This record gives sequence, structure tokens and C-alpha cells, in this order.
Amino acid sequence: MYQSNLISKTRKQISQTEESLNAQILIKSGYIEQVMAGVYAYLPLGYKVLKNIEQIVREELNKISAQELLLPALHPKSYWEKTGRWESLDVLYRFKSYYTSTELALGSTHEEIITPIAKNFIQSYQDLPFATYQIQTKFRDEKRAKSGILRGREFIMKDLYSFHSSTDDLDKYYELVTQAYLNIYKRLGIGDITLKTYASGGTFSKYSHEFQTISDIGEDTIFVCEKCNIAINKEIIEEQKTCPECDNSDLIQKQSIEVGNIFKLQTKYSEAFDLEFTDESGVNKPVIMGCYGIGISRLMGTLVEVFAVNESKMLWPESVGPFDIHLITLNTDSEEVVKKSEELYIMLQKEGKDVLFDNRNERPGIKFAEADLIGINKRIIISSKTIAQNGVEIDGQIIPFDKI
Amino acid sequence: MYQSNLISKTRKQISQTEESLNAQILIKSGYIEQVMAGVYAYLPLGYKVLKNIEQIVREELNKISAQELLLPALHPKSYWEKTGRWESLDVLYRFKSYYTSTELALGSTHEEIITPIAKNFIQSYQDLPFATYQIQTKFRDEKRAKSGILRGREFIMKDLYSFHSSTDDLDKYYELVTQAYLNIYKRLGIGDITLKTYASGGTFSKYSHEFQTISDIGEDTIFVCEKCNIAINKEIIEEQKTCPECDNSDLIQKQSIEVGNIFKLQTKYSEAFDLEFTDESGVNKPVIMGCYGIGISRLMGTLVEVFAVNESKMLWPESVGPFDIHLITLNTDSEEVVKKSEELYIMLQKEGKDVLFDNRNERPGIKFAEADLIGINKRIIISSKTIAQNGVEIDGQIIPFDKI
Repeated sequence: MYQSNLISKTRKQISQTEESLNAQILIKSGYIEQVMAGVYAYLPLGYKVLKNIEQIVREELNKISAQELLLPALHPKSYWEKTGRWESLDVLYRFKSYYTSTELALGSTHEEIITPIAKNFIQSYQDLPFATYQIQTKFRDEKRAKSGILRGREFIMKDLYSFHSSTDDLDKYYELVTQAYLNIYKRLGIGDITLKTYASGGTFSKYSHEFQTISDIGEDTIFVCEKCNIAINKEIIEEQKTCPECDNSDLIQKQSIEVGNIFKLQTKYSEAFDLEFTDESGVNKPVIMGCYGIGISRLMGTLVEVFAVNESKMLWPESVGPFDIHLITLNTDSEEVVKKSEELYIMLQKEGKDVLFDNRNERPGIKFAEADLIGINKRIIISSKTIAQNGVEIDGQIIPFDKI
Repeated sequence: MYQSNLISKTRKQISQTEESLNAQILIKSGYIEQVMAGVYAYLPLGYKVLKNIEQIVREELNKISAQELLLPALHPKSYWEKTGRWESLDVLYRFKSYYTSTELALGSTHEEIITPIAKNFIQSYQDLPFATYQIQTKFRDEKRAKSGILRGREFIMKDLYSFHSSTDDLDKYYELVTQAYLNIYKRLGIGDITLKTYASGGTFSKYSHEFQTISDIGEDTIFVCEKCNIAINKEIIEEQKTCPECDNSDLIQKQSIEVGNIFKLQTKYSEAFDLEFTDESGVNKPVIMGCYGIGISRLMGTLVEVFAVNESKMLWPESVGPFDIHLITLNTDSEEVVKKSEELYIMLQKEGKDVLFDNRNERPGIKFAEADLIGINKRIIISSKTIAQNGVEIDGQIIPFDKI
């Protein structure tokens, strides 16, 4: 794509209402736009990153046989009353239809929707287990929204739900999801700094788990066991003072961003909705459930917080950047340079590369400042100087044309 | 995919609250589920169809250089007040944040969001033209919802917005979109029965255009010129009694489903939001806009209304069906049949086909009834009888294994 055709432009200054680094960089670089506090539009560059993250998540979940579907955002009050969360979940947007006076909620999570749907498809143990997920827009009526796309009032989540006939089977799938999550963070370039973190399991399980990415700006506090490369969250550190995997008590306190959580729901929702199955001996039992979340837009914000060099310079991991290559032409007044760079642009595309091609007639300083903001992982510079050396510049080195 | 692994199941009966054929078939076949009146979940089979339709729309719009983005569903009141539609658009869901008392709308269209965003990127005529679209969930507070996914309270739309420095340029892009839309309908298998339809242009243009698919269950009435293969809608037939393209007055009244509309907004929204550009001579002028919609979920419903053979039998167009091939094994008690069908399943997948493989131990009558509901375009039957003839059955014919 020609950079001159991009509908967005980079900006030096943005409004001062954005406190977070991720929103500042993403707005300055033309990836996102604030529509109101906590609510953002994803412009073409940002949308591409979002889709790349989604695709990695999708691929890893499909590998563990989860089936993708799409649940609605509008929910009837009756389902939320069944679990008591119509009253108790304070971030739920609640409103009435003008015409029908029906009371509605905007989904901030989907246990109340998927559980009654599953009733249609589960009769006996032979219908179990299965897992299903969606990548969908969620809503939370947050008191304050000041963390950019790390915590929005509207955001994109992957939520996965699994259904089992035994706790053993749930435990096995829970481990599969754990591994899938670790694969996802690895592919996003944050594998080394993202830790499985022990958290409270609520009424039914000893633990649930979060996945926490270490970052000084993180809202969460965790206690890291560097032997096992796992952590314990602040909530349970008083009762769990040593690493649950190796009993190490030398835990190191760090700040982190929660980028995923997995939870054994057991029978909490199946009991609320009478979701039962008949076991091998003909006895009716409540279905055993797990739920597993990853904030897709939050992950995008996390990548900015982690990989931004400063507030004017970003470097996306290769796996999710909006383009594979940023091809930048200097000396656009030279016919030879223009011709050679067009040839290179066409060649790279033929090789299947997605290329952002900056052949604009601008000063090098402007072009590099914009390229720094946009942050594409691989940058190729072509100019009179590099052509004189029969090549291009990549990472400060001259690379011959036939070696690109 | 093994059919036994599908999380959905077909059903013979559904609740009587579904009046429409599309919802009846889609629920019975396990494609969708009703969550409340006008609000549906898309189960894995339905989600695949939705994504296939989206991809066709996306490809045709990318060809005309439109750039994909994603706008939010939560809108601040202030933007809707600028155009007066906070009061006038009766289907807008309006509500308040519990915490901040901010008044919000749920987007039923996005002119009020894209226009102020475009202000950030348009200064001079050199920034024009451009076009941008999204495929996104929209909301309408409908008085009644009785047409299944043809008219939901929550639905999926593709909305495209274009920005121009002259009406000539808008006119040219409008023609490109018209052609893209006709390509889309053709690829969906409804090209022959979907007509460009003249509609009222409102204050600023003589006409706008709809795309209407002929169907007896359609809510719209159109008047077809069979010479030009275009139509005129009911709204303007009193003032436009002949075909605007050939003056033919022999127009034939038909019922139809609106599957797209395109509209020259001119400067209506750019004036409301002060969206201006500087022309070649340095004069500030309002940007000229067009908007173009296609209901993605409505298209899916239309395909059911058009291609359903009866209320128990559907046949998806090859381009959007959830699988390329439905492979059905009979005589699953024969080891040879089981082995041969597994081999065939693997071979078809190696050829890049997406296959739904029904090797369940069920009676043929049950399998065929379910396959009729699911409606995959190509069905391959393998049984003791076909293997004896060294082949499979496709459309009632024995096809040798090496000719599949």
C-alpha cells in the first residue's frame, strides 16, 4: 500500500485528555481515535493489528478443538436475574427499549447467554465435552476510563466456554487452554514476560489463574517465583505466601497487566440454568463448566506499553504489525530512485509481503519520524546513496538487492 | 470436521414464536439461536456462513480501494445532537451511564462517528478522495421483530463512507460501488434476482438507490423494468411512472427484500460537523460524502428465503455454505465402508476442501433429513452399494473414486 493512500495521518500533538502511553502513541500514529472516554475507533492501521492478534488467538484455540461462534451484545434481563448478576454486576449497562419497555443489558460477559444455548445441545454424556468461543465486542460501565485501550468501556474480548461431564475432564481441558494461552503470548512476543498467575478460585475451586504481563504501568501487583516462572496475585498472597509449584518463598513483587484469565466455573451457571446431562448410569447431573478470557484490544494496548521505545517511537512484533515491511524512498527527485523503488515494491509484494510504501516527496526527517511512530518491524530504506552501493539499507547495513 | 463433533444439533421442532422461514430453518438446522425477539446468536455453522458472506463483501470493496476500519457501538449524545438525530431517529437505543450519567446511544448507523473522525485527516483537496468501511454490529429499537434475521434489533452491517472534493468525483465512486454491489450479489448466487432500484434521493440528490432481491416474502414493493433489469421503489413510483433508464412504462410490480442501499449524502453531514477542505484555489469548502450499506446478516436471511426448498430443506450457494462438501457414510457397520470413507475424508481435505463428515452410526433417513436441513451444496454419499461400483454417489449418479 502506498503510504500516501492511507486515510490516517500521524500527528505530533493530541488532546491532553489521554493519560495513557498506549492511547497517546496509537492516536498519534493514526491507529486509533478516541470517540469518548474509554471508547475508541480502530482506524485501518489499528484494525489490521487487531485482526492479526485475533487470528493468532483463533488459530491456537482451533488447535484445541474449540468452535467459534458469535453471541449477541443485547441481553434480556431475565437471563441475568437467574444468576443474580442483574443486581450484583455493577459495570453492567442496563436500559429499556423505548417501544416495548423490555429491560436489556449490554453484555460484559456471556455465561448468561451461552449456558441456556448449550441446553439445546446437551442431553447425555455423549454430547460432552465441547468448547466454544467468540471474539466479540463487550461493554462495561466503568466509573473512570483512563488507561486507553487497556480498560475501555467498549472493548474486544475472546471468551471461551467449555462443558464437561467430570471435573477430571475439565481439569484436562483447563491445562490445554493454559498451554494455548502460553503459545498465544509467545507468538505475540511477550512470552518471556507473561506469567501464569495463581488467583482466587472463588467458591468452587482452590485457584483460578490469570496471565500477567510484567509492566511498570500495570494496574496489578503480582509476586513472581523466578524458579518456576509463575506468579501469585495480590488477592491471595496473604494465604499463599510461597510458590504453589515449588514452595519457594523468595517471591519478587512486580507490577503487571492482566492479559488473560481462566476459571473453573464448575456447576455455578449450569445449576442456575438447569443445564444437565444424563451420565452412563442414567443419572441426571449438572454440566461442569470452565470459562477462559483474553482481552484482544487490551493485548494490543499491552504490546504498545511493552514495545514502545518512547512516546514517539513504537516497534510492533513482526507477528502482529500492520505491515511486514515499511519501504521508504529518499531522494524522490531522482528518477532512478523512483524507478528502482517501484520495482522493489512490486517485487516484495510478489514475494507475498504486505508492504507500506512511503514514496512521498517529504524530507527524510519527517518520513523517519512518522515511520518511528507507525513502528513496522522491518524497515527498508532506498536512496541515491544505497543505489550507488547497489542495495538498500536495513538496520543501518547496506544489503545488496539480490540479498533482500 | 466430524459431524459428531459439531456442537449444534438439528431439531425437528422449534418454538412457535418464530414466524419467519429464515429463522425457522436456521434454528432447526443449528445455524442460529434466538436469544430474544430480534436478537440471535450465530452458532458455528451460522458463523461460518456469516464470515463467508463478509469475506465476499470485503474482497469487492477492497478492489475499489476502500479501507477497512472498526467504529464503536457506544456513541456520545453530543454527536447525535449535532445532526438532530438524537431526537428524530426513533429506533436509536438511548441510555445513561449509571456512574457518570453520560447519555449514550447504541449505533444504528455511523455518519455521526465517521464524519468527526475524518476531520482529523482532511485538510486540503490532496487528502481526497478516500473511502472507508466497517463490518460491525448495529442496533435498532424496533417496535416489532418478526422477520428473523432479515430485520433484527441487533444485526451485522457493512457500512461504507466516501469523501470527495467534487460531486463529479462522488458520482464516479458511486458508480464503482454500484458495480461492486452487483458483483457481490452475483457471487452470492442472487445476481439474477437482485435489481438496482431507484429510490428517493432526499433533499440533495434526485435519486438514491437500493438493491432489491425479488422474493414473495419481501416487505418492499418494487416496479421492475424487464428491459433494463432495474426497478423503482414504491416511494417514488407516483412521481416516476416510467423506467428512468429507458422510459419504458410497462413496469411489473413485485415483492422484494432490500439487500443494500447507496446514498449521495452530499454535504449534509460535513456541514453538521464542519468537515471542510481547502480547494486548489485556497477556498474552504464542505467535503462531499456518500454512504453505502449492506446488511450482512440480512443477506444471510435472504439467501435462506431464496434458496430454501421448503421448511425442512435448504441449499446454500457454494460460495457461502459452511462447508464445501457434506460427506455421508451409510452402512457404518461395514469395516470396508468405514475405512474407505475415512480415506476419502482425508483425501478431500488434502485437496483443500472443507468437509463435514457424517460417519455417525445413524439410519440413512435421519442422516439425509439432517443433511437436507444443513444444506451444504455438494453431497457425496459412500456406502456398500457405491463401493461395490467402485465409487461414490453424487447427485444420484455413481462417480468412480478417481473422478471425484
